Amino acid sequence: MKTLLSLSFFFLALLSASAQTIERMEPANWWTGMKYDTVNVLFYGKDISHLRADISYPGVTLIRTDTVANKNYLFLTLYIMPAAKPGIVNIRFNRLGKTVVTKKFPLLQREPNSAQRASFSQKDAIYLVFPDRFSNGNVKNDIQPALLEKTINRGNEDARHGGDIQGILNHLDYISDLGFTYIWNTPLVENDEPSYSYHGYAATDFYRIDPRFGSNEDFKKLVVEAHKRGIGVIWDVVLNHCGSEYYFIKDMPEKNWVNFPDTHIRTTHLKSTVNDRYATAIDKMEYVGGWFDGHMSDLNQANPRVAAFLIQNTIWWIEYAGISGLRVDTFSYSDKDFLTEWTKTILLEYPNMNIVGEEMTRIVAETAYWQKDKVNPDQYKCYLPTLMDFSLNDNIVSALNRSGSWFSSWRDVYFGIAQDYHFPYPGNQLIFPDNHDLDRFYSRVGKNFQHWKLGIAMYATMRGIPQFFYGTEVLMTNEKAGSDGQRRSDLYGGWLGDSKNVLTGKGLTDQEKEAQQYLKKLLHWRKANPDLMNGKYIHYGPGNNDVFVYSRFNAKQKVVVFLNKNSDDVTLDLERYREVIPLNSSAKDIINGRLYLLNDKLTLPAKTAIILELIK
Amino acid sequence: MKTLLSLSFFFLALLSASAQTIERMEPANWWTGMKYDTVNVLFYGKDISHLRADISYPGVTLIRTDTVANKNYLFLTLYIMPAAKPGIVNIRFNRLGKTVVTKKFPLLQREPNSAQRASFSQKDAIYLVFPDRFSNGNVKNDIQPALLEKTINRGNEDARHGGDIQGILNHLDYISDLGFTYIWNTPLVENDEPSYSYHGYAATDFYRIDPRFGSNEDFKKLVVEAHKRGIGVIWDVVLNHCGSEYYFIKDMPEKNWVNFPDTHIRTTHLKSTVNDRYATAIDKMEYVGGWFDGHMSDLNQANPRVAAFLIQNTIWWIEYAGISGLRVDTFSYSDKDFLTEWTKTILLEYPNMNIVGEEMTRIVAETAYWQKDKVNPDQYKCYLPTLMDFSLNDNIVSALNRSGSWFSSWRDVYFGIAQDYHFPYPGNQLIFPDNHDLDRFYSRVGKNFQHWKLGIAMYATMRGIPQFFYGTEVLMTNEKAGSDGQRRSDLYGGWLGDSKNVLTGKGLTDQEKEAQQYLKKLLHWRKANPDLMNGKYIHYGPGNNDVFVYSRFNAKQKVVVFLNKNSDDVTLDLERYREVIPLNSSAKDIINGRLYLLNDKLTLPAKTAIILELIK
Repeated sequence: MKTLLSLSFFFLALLSASAQTIERMEPANWWTGMKYDTVNVLFYGKDISHLRADISYPGVTLIRTDTVANKNYLFLTLYIMPAAKPGIVNIRFNRLGKTVVTKKFPLLQREPNSAQRASFSQKDAIYLVFPDRFSNGNVKNDIQPALLEKTINRGNEDARHGGDIQGILNHLDYISDLGFTYIWNTPLVENDEPSYSYHGYAATDFYRIDPRFGSNEDFKKLVVEAHKRGIGVIWDVVLNHCGSEYYFIKDMPEKNWVNFPDTHIRTTHLKSTVNDRYATAIDKMEYVGGWFDGHMSDLNQANPRVAAFLIQNTIWWIEYAGISGLRVDTFSYSDKDFLTEWTKTILLEYPNMNIVGEEMTRIVAETAYWQKDKVNPDQYKCYLPTLMDFSLNDNIVSALNRSGSWFSSWRDVYFGIAQDYHFPYPGNQLIFPDNHDLDRFYSRVGKNFQHWKLGIAMYATMRGIPQFFYGTEVLMTNEKAGSDGQRRSDLYGGWLGDSKNVLTGKGLTDQEKEAQQYLKKLLHWRKANPDLMNGKYIHYGPGNNDVFVYSRFNAKQKVVVFLNKNSDDVTLDLERYREVIPLNSSAKDIINGRLYLLNDKLTLPAKTAIILELIK
Repeated sequence: MKTLLSLSFFFLALLSASAQTIERMEPANWWTGMKYDTVNVLFYGKDISHLRADISYPGVTLIRTDTVANKNYLFLTLYIMPAAKPGIVNIRFNRLGKTVVTKKFPLLQREPNSAQRASFSQKDAIYLVFPDRFSNGNVKNDIQPALLEKTINRGNEDARHGGDIQGILNHLDYISDLGFTYIWNTPLVENDEPSYSYHGYAATDFYRIDPRFGSNEDFKKLVVEAHKRGIGVIWDVVLNHCGSEYYFIKDMPEKNWVNFPDTHIRTTHLKSTVNDRYATAIDKMEYVGGWFDGHMSDLNQANPRVAAFLIQNTIWWIEYAGISGLRVDTFSYSDKDFLTEWTKTILLEYPNMNIVGEEMTRIVAETAYWQKDKVNPDQYKCYLPTLMDFSLNDNIVSALNRSGSWFSSWRDVYFGIAQDYHFPYPGNQLIFPDNHDLDRFYSRVGKNFQHWKLGIAMYATMRGIPQFFYGTEVLMTNEKAGSDGQRRSDLYGGWLGDSKNVLTGKGLTDQEKEAQQYLKKLLHWRKANPDLMNGKYIHYGPGNNDVFVYSRFNAKQKVVVFLNKNSDDVTLDLERYREVIPLNSSAKDIINGRLYLLNDKLTLPAKTAIILELIK
């Protein structure tokens, strides 16, 4: 009887063991020698929660096993000691003392100098690429039968158009030639939603490049090829939400994996609740916890397993692919304490890493709240180095479009920048004429080419880190204001047979070519003067005319920028500008090379930016 | 020969002595027992700088004599020891050892409890009076032959109309009956300019009430009479400038008594230069040092004698007249370090004194910069307790006038208040529908009476210290936007024979009477609930409709305010408001006394403010 019982148990166990699979292990590996040495690994498979895991690998210990409400999940916390050597950690999952499945968890050697990698700063210029709409370099990956959205359709603004990593690779020389030193791609990870996920912000696998863009290895290759050209790659991180088709959303580990799991309440977008001393608890919760829309599940980063997942995922991509910069989507919509932890952890691991957060507000103080070393009235601390400057973006467009005010068009630009005292590191602001969420700059200035040039000159010389959206160099527009599809229209020449082509100049108007050259001139000048670009800034209050004057300088170099928006030439009395232009200075116009002797007066041509480099 | 010489010297000295006069001594007295015990007394008289002063009075010493470039001035610094007793200090001015003139400098006894006098706070409501346009209580003082502007003309917006202190006295019962607890008069000091100085901001004698308003004693009487009715008086201080006809401007003590003495450069009004880390030195100087206009001489408070003059003048008026609150004109236009010293000194002398500064900007952080205990990035410290809230003023008008937005009309109001985290003491903000520099509130809301009531209800219940401009209680308007003269038009019934009268109701429309009663109701409710008004505030983010909900509360009391700007009734689901309205609360409408049982729903009538006091 006893033997029979044992035997039947044995068969049962065998049966279960053969049926047992673990579909997911995330992260799929880690590295030795990391500061982040305690990794929370998520395992997903049918009814795995009762399995007992063990490890036997020198220098690695399993320090905790967490089960959650859903039996299909198991979370193992591994501690990787400093002494641990690279190799394969076998993680055995056992039932009744028997190993029923083993997962191989590689511990890799880091690249040399990985922790000390450099990142972007004011000396750089960033090219923002929207992968689906940039260039279709590989038509074979356009349709993926295993994914839900099975078509591409360039005629439909909301559909996928087929752009991919190969398309970006094909344009690296072009981007480098324009003078850019960084590329920021909007998210490349898998977005396997039935429709409208070409934008990449509805991830369904944070660990996988969407196969329509290429493979993880393709992305790694892009980084390598970019580096060869002196270009770093910025990774777009989404911490706030993911796609509704994510496996861990369709089969949630626990109820509080997302916020408002039953009601899917929409976010109120009331950013003020973050630091408003008068906000009600429900308003605070609905801002952070509310969903962007029904297909964007709002992750609850207050859940420590969600938090660990997101932190590890970021570090994994940096380490795996050689990323040298991060951009964080919808920054303030995540849990505040988590944002502290996430930024602190990334910077602990990569002390030179720059991270730019999106905080889409015109209220400068609300933006500065998040910056590293900011002293906030509520004592909140975050470690985010860089913020996107939506205030400047709005103010420059208003300035360029304003006419007939009794005060200078530039006044709001000036007042906006003057609020930089809120920032511990005011130079760490990303400045941009446009991006994938804004109308195209050339459209916003009413296709006024002179104003476009004034604005571009300003972005290229102002304090901050300039970022330009793909196609802005050739005056791409969106005819319909507010249309996301049109803002993200296909790059000229990104698709075979296009009538216009940014690479060859085919079909470009003279003005488009001039725009391309103008930006190129500015960016190459920037590239040749990194110390100046990382230097200081000073400005003059615009008077009653439409001239804005500012200077960038360091101990050795100085440039003075005059933005004359008037329809007439303006002659300035230089007496007022002695602080930045000593009497009898010589200067060179960086655009056309013209030499100036700066005595009493300077005449500025109508609607022109004059950028004068002072000569010692 | 020697005798002859002595004799001629004797005659010369005699001649000079008999001719020697000192026209001015400012301040004309001081008090014993003051913290401010070292007084810099200005003496003005022809060629007095070579006189040697001496004093012999127990407990008072002359610790310094300053001469300046102009020989008509002498500055004596007296130290009044704690032991000094009240009495007359004889200040002797000597030449060649002979006293040629003696000035009597009284040392007075302070009123009991003078240092600890109370001041205004959120529990109060302030009535702003513009004396020349409020009421002509004494027609005999209208024309002053000794002054430059010799006429009154009610038909001319820019001329004097004859209002005076007696006119204010005549209305004290009215002001008290409306429910006000403070009066702020715009400046009453002498403004002896040839024209356009009815406004009082071009002082020609900081120590004298303009005789067209009355005497110094009349003002003192006004304070006494106001106190009898539970009303405090706020003194309007101008530190930045004075009138061009001031004796010390026409015959300046020293060249740097004013800023830009030769060029009279206009101020740029670029407030941002105060804390802008990028501002040029010339921009900073022109903002603070620039003149308001050619008749407003810009005092240089960086000159220590100017600084002492201004500080002493303020203390003198407080002590002399029994003032219990200060308002400071054009606050940030003065020297920053002086503003620190001035505010610190006043508060050292009168620790409970409230002082409200005018900083006319919509940028909340720029306003908060000046508040006591504010931690500023540049380490600047000021001691100003209260700021005028121009942001709220603008936002409420915009909210009331906005229509057809996709978001709530109240949104900007809400976002503005949500920035209160910049203030160490956010309740210390003066909130006001209008004042003498703004268009009349009823005009600004397009004479929409329902909107007027919504706004007035908000000012009466919002966090902050409410201030109402005279005449706003009866819907006074200015037909021409921007017209200072019309903003400051004559109070109905302030002049004999007026067809309308706020006191008697004569000629008032039903709506004007209703307005008067509405404000009175609100203010009396406030007056009955001082602890609640000094209590806390919490608000709900307005959703997509036009309802704004907030609450004022303390440990014992609570009121919930619903501002429904919609043209239709709105039924609120109270589930959302549980933080402020517990289930099954009872409440009373403070306007009409109606009782409510607050369960699931609350219906708000169209375009109405419902103010519900919760009943325990």
